[in-house]
Amino acid sequence: MKKVAVLLSGSGVFDGAEVNEAVLTLLHISKQGASYQCFAPDVDQLHVVNHLSGDVTEEKRNVLVESARIARGEVKPLSELDAAEFDALILPGGFGVAKNFCDFAVNGADMTVNEQVLAVGKAFVEARKPAGYMCIAPVLLPHIYGEGVRATIGFDKDVASAIEKMGGKHVECPVDDIVVDDANRLVTTPAYMLATNLVDAEKGISKLVEKVLYMAS
Amino acid sequence: MKKVAVLLSGSGVFDGAEVNEAVLTLLHISKQGASYQCFAPDVDQLHVVNHLSGDVTEEKRNVLVESARIARGEVKPLSELDAAEFDALILPGGFGVAKNFCDFAVNGADMTVNEQVLAVGKAFVEARKPAGYMCIAPVLLPHIYGEGVRATIGFDKDVASAIEKMGGKHVECPVDDIVVDDANRLVTTPAYMLATNLVDAEKGISKLVEKVLYMAS
Repeated sequence: MKKVAVLLSGSGVFDGAEVNEAVLTLLHISKQGASYQCFAPDVDQLHVVNHLSGDVTEEKRNVLVESARIARGEVKPLSELDAAEFDALILPGGFGVAKNFCDFAVNGADMTVNEQVLAVGKAFVEARKPAGYMCIAPVLLPHIYGEGVRATIGFDKDVASAIEKMGGKHVECPVDDIVVDDANRLVTTPAYMLATNLVDAEKGISKLVEKVLYMAS
Repeated sequence: MKKVAVLLSGSGVFDGAEVNEAVLTLLHISKQGASYQCFAPDVDQLHVVNHLSGDVTEEKRNVLVESARIARGEVKPLSELDAAEFDALILPGGFGVAKNFCDFAVNGADMTVNEQVLAVGKAFVEARKPAGYMCIAPVLLPHIYGEGVRATIGFDKDVASAIEKMGGKHVECPVDDIVVDDANRLVTTPAYMLATNLVDAEKGISKLVEKVLYMAS
């Protein structure tokens, strides 16, 4: 049975992992007959957003602890992720990726990546193991894969331009499709960068999971 | 297009709505071509559980605000739910139902139900509109439907016995199936009372959603 490491960045679209993307990812890994283990960095969230009002609150929350809400407690610290134990890596999106995995939400193309996230991403590259990055997560890719990496975040010109500025090659893509960088064994899909409903999000995410697992064979 | 009101009890299995059940419910409502609106009561959670350690923390969180994490902000106060505007009602489970919608987690069969949840449940009964309750949510049913209501929470003898003590008729049921009380237009499924993975949970939840929407036609 193929094993997938899934990286969560909290629990909630505006300050953590996009909940629907995360659940659909885990659902389709299971439907494809593979298993998964969720991981998250043991760090404070950049901030906490009241998801009803959209306001930033005074609260402190931890990315690992909040990620456990999606994973029913079954999440491990990212420091324990050994790429040798997994066949593939998948990152759901959500603002948590742009706020907790890197500082893209604050610094745009001048962003830096969390050291653990960077090390884990690069470990899968070096092991020639496939990966899937969805939604906003492809902003990480120029730092992880280097110049020329091909990826999509859909049609958002500002984010696409930032990816190009960092050295990536952005490819436009609709919500129900994927972009494959064969040389890098890398799959991306826009998910909630474009999705307006769960059915459309599922189309791209299920394709991403299927392709990543196919590449892992 | 049929419209379903979905009641959320927070965001996280141990103190709120079971995240996977909630997302699968919304996914299958959409897949069936229906629309939904999420609602949650604007009250403090009974408590906040660290989902990594399982410990109760000192934090205060609001059920409506946390439910917005699953609903991407699109959740309304339960006080605004008018049964006349919807064709059906569905309640995902999670300990939030037993802690925030009623006090079953504390008082067992001597429980009382949150006034708004009780009023909304009864409004759908009085309107003869179908409803689906999953996971632990069927503990609410004897209070809402009265004596003899038929429902399942799977095979848990303690919870089944409490439902019977409150006047309900418990029917054992595996995770991939539903129990239908035709007279009450009511569907129940065990979901994460029994599920050990998302694929099994989806089987029962998709059947529940399909049956509820069929009854709404």
